[in-house]
Amino acid sequence: MDSESNDQFKDGCGVMGIIGHPEASKMAYLGLHALQHRGQESSGIVSSDGTNFYREVAMGLVADIFTQDKLDKLHGNIAIGHNRYSTTGSSHIKNCQPILVDYALGPLAIAHNGNFVNDSILRDQLEAYGSIFHSTMDTEVMVHLIAKHNHGQLLDRIIGALHIIKGAYSIVVMDEKNLFAVRDPAGFRPLLLGKIGDAYVVASETCAFDLIEAKLVREIEPGELIHITDKGEIKSYHPFPKAKISSCVFEFVYFARPDSYIFGHHVSEIRRKLGRELARTTHVDADIVIPIPDSGMQAALGYSEESGIPFDLGLTRNHYTGRTFIEPEQSIRHFGVKLKLNPIRSVIAGKRVIVIDDSIVRGTTSRKIIKMIREAGAKEVHMRISSPPTSYPCYYGIDTPSRKELIAATHSIEEITKYITADSLQYLSIENMLNVFGENSKNFCSACFSGNYPIEFCSDTKTRQMRLFE
Amino acid sequence: MDSESNDQFKDGCGVMGIIGHPEASKMAYLGLHALQHRGQESSGIVSSDGTNFYREVAMGLVADIFTQDKLDKLHGNIAIGHNRYSTTGSSHIKNCQPILVDYALGPLAIAHNGNFVNDSILRDQLEAYGSIFHSTMDTEVMVHLIAKHNHGQLLDRIIGALHIIKGAYSIVVMDEKNLFAVRDPAGFRPLLLGKIGDAYVVASETCAFDLIEAKLVREIEPGELIHITDKGEIKSYHPFPKAKISSCVFEFVYFARPDSYIFGHHVSEIRRKLGRELARTTHVDADIVIPIPDSGMQAALGYSEESGIPFDLGLTRNHYTGRTFIEPEQSIRHFGVKLKLNPIRSVIAGKRVIVIDDSIVRGTTSRKIIKMIREAGAKEVHMRISSPPTSYPCYYGIDTPSRKELIAATHSIEEITKYITADSLQYLSIENMLNVFGENSKNFCSACFSGNYPIEFCSDTKTRQMRLFE
Amino acid sequence: MDSESNDQFKDGCGVMGIIGHPEASKMAYLGLHALQHRGQESSGIVSSDGTNFYREVAMGLVADIFTQDKLDKLHGNIAIGHNRYSTTGSSHIKNCQPILVDYALGPLAIAHNGNFVNDSILRDQLEAYGSIFHSTMDTEVMVHLIAKHNHGQLLDRIIGALHIIKGAYSIVVMDEKNLFAVRDPAGFRPLLLGKIGDAYVVASETCAFDLIEAKLVREIEPGELIHITDKGEIKSYHPFPKAKISSCVFEFVYFARPDSYIFGHHVSEIRRKLGRELARTTHVDADIVIPIPDSGMQAALGYSEESGIPFDLGLTRNHYTGRTFIEPEQSIRHFGVKLKLNPIRSVIAGKRVIVIDDSIVRGTTSRKIIKMIREAGAKEVHMRISSPPTSYPCYYGIDTPSRKELIAATHSIEEITKYITADSLQYLSIENMLNVFGENSKNFCSACFSGNYPIEFCSDTKTRQMRLFE
Amino acid sequence: MDSESNDQFKDGCGVMGIIGHPEASKMAYLGLHALQHRGQESSGIVSSDGTNFYREVAMGLVADIFTQDKLDKLHGNIAIGHNRYSTTGSSHIKNCQPILVDYALGPLAIAHNGNFVNDSILRDQLEAYGSIFHSTMDTEVMVHLIAKHNHGQLLDRIIGALHIIKGAYSIVVMDEKNLFAVRDPAGFRPLLLGKIGDAYVVASETCAFDLIEAKLVREIEPGELIHITDKGEIKSYHPFPKAKISSCVFEFVYFARPDSYIFGHHVSEIRRKLGRELARTTHVDADIVIPIPDSGMQAALGYSEESGIPFDLGLTRNHYTGRTFIEPEQSIRHFGVKLKLNPIRSVIAGKRVIVIDDSIVRGTTSRKIIKMIREAGAKEVHMRISSPPTSYPCYYGIDTPSRKELIAATHSIEEITKYITADSLQYLSIENMLNVFGENSKNFCSACFSGNYPIEFCSDTKTRQMRLFE
Repeated sequence: MDSESNDQFKDGCGVMGIIGHPEASKMAYLGLHALQHRGQESSGIVSSDGTNFYREVAMGLVADIFTQDKLDKLHGNIAIGHNRYSTTGSSHIKNCQPILVDYALGPLAIAHNGNFVNDSILRDQLEAYGSIFHSTMDTEVMVHLIAKHNHGQLLDRIIGALHIIKGAYSIVVMDEKNLFAVRDPAGFRPLLLGKIGDAYVVASETCAFDLIEAKLVREIEPGELIHITDKGEIKSYHPFPKAKISSCVFEFVYFARPDSYIFGHHVSEIRRKLGRELARTTHVDADIVIPIPDSGMQAALGYSEESGIPFDLGLTRNHYTGRTFIEPEQSIRHFGVKLKLNPIRSVIAGKRVIVIDDSIVRGTTSRKIIKMIREAGAKEVHMRISSPPTSYPCYYGIDTPSRKELIAATHSIEEITKYITADSLQYLSIENMLNVFGENSKNFCSACFSGNYPIEFCSDTKTRQMRLFE
Repeated sequence: MDSESNDQFKDGCGVMGIIGHPEASKMAYLGLHALQHRGQESSGIVSSDGTNFYREVAMGLVADIFTQDKLDKLHGNIAIGHNRYSTTGSSHIKNCQPILVDYALGPLAIAHNGNFVNDSILRDQLEAYGSIFHSTMDTEVMVHLIAKHNHGQLLDRIIGALHIIKGAYSIVVMDEKNLFAVRDPAGFRPLLLGKIGDAYVVASETCAFDLIEAKLVREIEPGELIHITDKGEIKSYHPFPKAKISSCVFEFVYFARPDSYIFGHHVSEIRRKLGRELARTTHVDADIVIPIPDSGMQAALGYSEESGIPFDLGLTRNHYTGRTFIEPEQSIRHFGVKLKLNPIRSVIAGKRVIVIDDSIVRGTTSRKIIKMIREAGAKEVHMRISSPPTSYPCYYGIDTPSRKELIAATHSIEEITKYITADSLQYLSIENMLNVFGENSKNFCSACFSGNYPIEFCSDTKTRQMRLFE
Repeated sequence: MDSESNDQFKDGCGVMGIIGHPEASKMAYLGLHALQHRGQESSGIVSSDGTNFYREVAMGLVADIFTQDKLDKLHGNIAIGHNRYSTTGSSHIKNCQPILVDYALGPLAIAHNGNFVNDSILRDQLEAYGSIFHSTMDTEVMVHLIAKHNHGQLLDRIIGALHIIKGAYSIVVMDEKNLFAVRDPAGFRPLLLGKIGDAYVVASETCAFDLIEAKLVREIEPGELIHITDKGEIKSYHPFPKAKISSCVFEFVYFARPDSYIFGHHVSEIRRKLGRELARTTHVDADIVIPIPDSGMQAALGYSEESGIPFDLGLTRNHYTGRTFIEPEQSIRHFGVKLKLNPIRSVIAGKRVIVIDDSIVRGTTSRKIIKMIREAGAKEVHMRISSPPTSYPCYYGIDTPSRKELIAATHSIEEITKYITADSLQYLSIENMLNVFGENSKNFCSACFSGNYPIEFCSDTKTRQMRLFE
Repeated sequence: MDSESNDQFKDGCGVMGIIGHPEASKMAYLGLHALQHRGQESSGIVSSDGTNFYREVAMGLVADIFTQDKLDKLHGNIAIGHNRYSTTGSSHIKNCQPILVDYALGPLAIAHNGNFVNDSILRDQLEAYGSIFHSTMDTEVMVHLIAKHNHGQLLDRIIGALHIIKGAYSIVVMDEKNLFAVRDPAGFRPLLLGKIGDAYVVASETCAFDLIEAKLVREIEPGELIHITDKGEIKSYHPFPKAKISSCVFEFVYFARPDSYIFGHHVSEIRRKLGRELARTTHVDADIVIPIPDSGMQAALGYSEESGIPFDLGLTRNHYTGRTFIEPEQSIRHFGVKLKLNPIRSVIAGKRVIVIDDSIVRGTTSRKIIKMIREAGAKEVHMRISSPPTSYPCYYGIDTPSRKELIAATHSIEEITKYITADSLQYLSIENMLNVFGENSKNFCSACFSGNYPIEFCSDTKTRQMRLFE
């Protein structure tokens, strides 16, 4: 992906839940580690021993936050966890999840991946009736709705709340004895059910199951609410009328880990097919095909296979990246990119190079990479993108720049080609992208490419002013 | 005070507010530093620049928490601050004050010294109507009541909330342009109004004014609500019917700083008088009068003056105390006390010693100190306490041990004398203690000595179970 | 490489020096970041402004250690830096480099990559004459020898010291106005000279030049001592008689970054050729060739090219690795490996797989990886190693396990094949490995494969007991 | 003491040693805690289990540095410890003690309180012969001298080194089985021998013994070297010719804890006598005598006793002092002092006040305090100092400002009186000060008052340039 940092597109998080396991919080922790790519800003776990609830949230990476000491305090055989990414403005400890509160039926914890499109309206209504908010997270709205639905047990209250909220969500909820997991009717975000021994586990991607050796049971279906008790009983509810499925195609293009299985497909396989489709539709004569590591790897392999042009590694990646990097005052060309990528001259020099990436956001990074490749001696540089031009922001849980920052929203492909100084630039078309899913090709949201938003959203979504800074 | 640590009796906090000052948060920080003795567990400041709100709270001491960096982020000319002490169970970051939330009229911050006696009932009611709670602080109840009072401006809502809560409170509330300060009708906790240039300031004790060179304007009266705007307008309201005044006498006995002026008296002067009264009513022949530093200082001076027995310093205090102290496995006698106090043999040896302290909690510390004094060569050790036996817990904002832990609740003075191994032990009587206030002697709560609680409290006050651990 | 952690073979460090640059310490910091792979245990920089010397060393990664604050204190236009890895026993702050001391001519700083084989003897002699040692680093011996050589200027003293020490070393030395860089006569470790504007820079690998945009001038020759003054004068000395060159072949096999150029070759190109040679000499029928990422990448590409068997990515790597990882009590199979690698089932299932790695140390990791690959559905797993069996420890600056821990030292290839559960295992022969260097093939040390040590070493090298723990 | 901070005069450290105790490092830690007032900049402990040596040093306070974790690593039944204060320039981790090095006979640790007056000359000589220095501490010179004395056992080498160094020193040295403790022939600094069970302990003051319940055996004599083995054998050596005793009188005036016993006297008793002598010789009519807490306490009590003028507490001290304090931009009068001291108006108002302090350094603090006292309503303020004017810097281990910063060095008493705005100011004369020691009055160094330095010092002592910054 073309971006100054490797997280320009930021998913709205990864979630994890587990019930019936003697080391529930440790399993949640390992699952969150496997889901780290879905959010690197903060992480948290809530657990319960059947009576008390324990919570640990902090800014930072999973492996840094959870010390032995902290995990030891997260008692009990039920736990939920969360990794978060968000925009700078609300990058505060108070916006960490899971949320843990006391309400009429006792303590309750919740974690959420996605975005409620009517969050702002609901928040105004709730405040009008006397609710107070501690954060700017839409998840807090869900908690209020559960608490306000003042009859029935937690299951009824969750269903009541779900009938009010709209948008993209894969949510896990727990009290001291029950775990709930739900996907929105359109199935925007992934959520899967697994099993380790007698314990059930839910997670945003199967890579979390692999690490803890859970077996995939099945995907939770769009619009399905699963209720698992501490006795190991599992029940499925479908509280919504059937809706058109709109799973996020960008999970395949960029977000999900290549070794995960989501929405009925292996991510790696889809990326390979996108690369083949790209080769088929955007051919150019060249000597080598190189990926931008690591995001362009599978697509580049597919491109090479289909085109017969040899795959090679022309850029090396430095994985030792710290929190902040201090730049010299004397400018270094392409500084940000150079910290992460360096061309391998012996591979590139004298060659006509096809560079494969998954997407272009602002174009600034692509421009720097292409210049670096030229300085390393490439004769020609052809850029091929394994998705269509990213022209529209996402309102369903992916943290995209605003429309005016997306180069494809304001420039023609010719202009972008010139800006990034490529000899040629081609994207995959929306149609060809969706082709790779075969009979499932109708079941995807590709709003970020097409502007066709499957669910209406409030005009002020994402514009509500952040006024509380901590 | 007789206690293992120097904070066995822990006040329910110190509060501070300031409006109209270009360095509002810095002034709040200095004020909190001066009020540090009222709470050493956590500290926090919220400020506003008229649009946004900034909050910084953390566990620890004021001087450690607020770095230049953090103070620089607390913009604006209005701020409130809070120091807190609390029992171990709820000693969590989530229980730090001031609380900052969003409600129907926008952001709101609040800090509180005291205790609502109907907190538990209100919490149940609020939850029944769908409220969610993030903490176990009664202050959060106040915020809900303000938010739920769904008409009128903030002033009206505060008054509405105050009509519902009962108990001891000195509260400061702010929005982006207004500062409110209120004392409960019985005036349990101190709160004073001061001025620096054109800025108004409120604080729990005048020592906060001294450090920042604010001039004392007057005490806020019991039952008075003061509203100060960012234009410098100040208005006083008395929203309650006149009630019997019950200011906390223990503020004079132990909590307040000796250099403060509260409830119409200089603390140092009252302590001196308590010492004189003690000498007058509990005479014993002896060679020297020594205080337990620092709490018994003024009373010992008064005792010496009245009795003519020379004052001396027989115990030295080590002020370098860290967070936790590692004890050797081989036991050291009186270890905890020794870290803080050491007898000065040249003062004590061969003498008949009167030891003055402000109170005895469990008796364990007194016992250790008396043994230390004997080992330093004292011929006789007579203990004199400048207050009556502490036999009842406080429900109005002071964090006392439960009744069964208070030695005076379960043992006669003879038994305590024997337990602490004193040659004699005498307390001040309630009557003689109150005498020192002259005509004001009726205006005090001495429930911790007498068991006469001026305000009814819910049976489960302080027993509500803490189930959320963070 | 087969190892539980990714640093089982640990280089004896990376060094960096710069003179004549207004942001000398910032350039050293960036260079050290690029050289991070050569040592992740500690890092340090010394700089001088011509009068005073500034030093910052700490345990940890470059990007974590050097904050803006710390870099700002490293004044001056001359600096040297160092990354270190070492065995656990001496992993202490006192063993961090560069060393900075005061001696007869004033302050002096030094950093070293390599190992003195007569360190132990020299240390005993120096102590016998009254020297004291603060660390167990052989670098400290060098400092003593410079200080003891009590006539002449620093240049003479360095030459004097070099005539006494034996072994592998690439050393940088600085005082307030001079930078010295030297390679041992056999040229074991790399060291190169570059230029940015008027400033000279030396570094262990060219990747450090790339990041700071320095141009490669040339390699410093084996046995060459370069002296650069703050006036930009540069002089070359050859204080030793010509010796047989024995550059470390393992730098190409594993240590150096693929984008670096050392010992007259591009690392990436050599690795590619090793892969081709491996394919040529160890053919097996299979469906795909997959690398262990990232160390086997280039060799796998070469193997694929030569064999015609398609290259693929069958293992994904999780780069979010924290300091320590907390393992569940319930054992997870291949836990350590799983944190880092996960097979991509859709690539592997049903295939005959050739797995390429650069080397096998203990065999435990290879065993786990092969099991993981089988569990992901591989029909056959053939392991191919792009170097000969690693059977002998290195005494020239690479931190290898002892001989008995090296599986190839104690087991036949058949036994190893069985242990790691491969269907077949083959290594590259020493002869074929050296072939790839063409006419330079005689100029390499391959002692870790052959046991032919080009320089004698003291019997107790590496056995001197560490008795000081900090 | 009159100073901006409470550590303007800074002792050259506190030392502690223990041998034969199963919890040696814990005892050292507690002893250092009791000696915290002798140095608050850094602290360290070295221990040995008979084979290995363990060291932990850090900047900061004892109670903050030594966690359970760190103490657990300091194995063995022999340990030495050190608290340090020093000037800003050399306030670096590398200057922390104890020093631990390897030399010809193995590891060796050393800690030192005092100052070598020929440090600079010895350092030059040692460097001329090839020694290297890692720090600017004179203690490092001692280590070199021990190592260079290349025959005999450690005892012989220590004696050899002591014959070369000159100045003030109380030193503890340990190897894995022996503890050595030595005082310089003039006995400048205190050092005492104690016993806990079978273990021997040495410390700078008896307050360290009190906390760990060691019994005082005796003072180590001036010029005495004690050698204690791990078998509990103790031997005494007097390697020097008898010299005139010059114990530091300032230990009594200010540094030592009032509950300590040193140089044959109880500190508290001497301070009391200084106060009496002061009253006898500097009478003035007044209503109350108040101390600057805590340094003027005992002298004020003595003054009150002798004069019959009542003792009172007119200033309260805030003990919650953090590392750094952030001052508002709008100046607050007497800010620094106000953070620590606040007048008690009810005590002072309308009174003629005698203020007692132990010394005046720059006069700035006294000036601020007197102004505060006047603002609190005092009618007259008479300052009385329980020592003579401090006019000369100390070269024997106390960290005094340079001569030109000492107000008494450049101003007459009349000028100082005016500067500090006192109604009158009087000091104790040197003769009267020494009178209180009775027959011992000749055995003290009062160079800081008289300028009569009992031992010659190199002209450049304390002027050697610090060039290494870490």
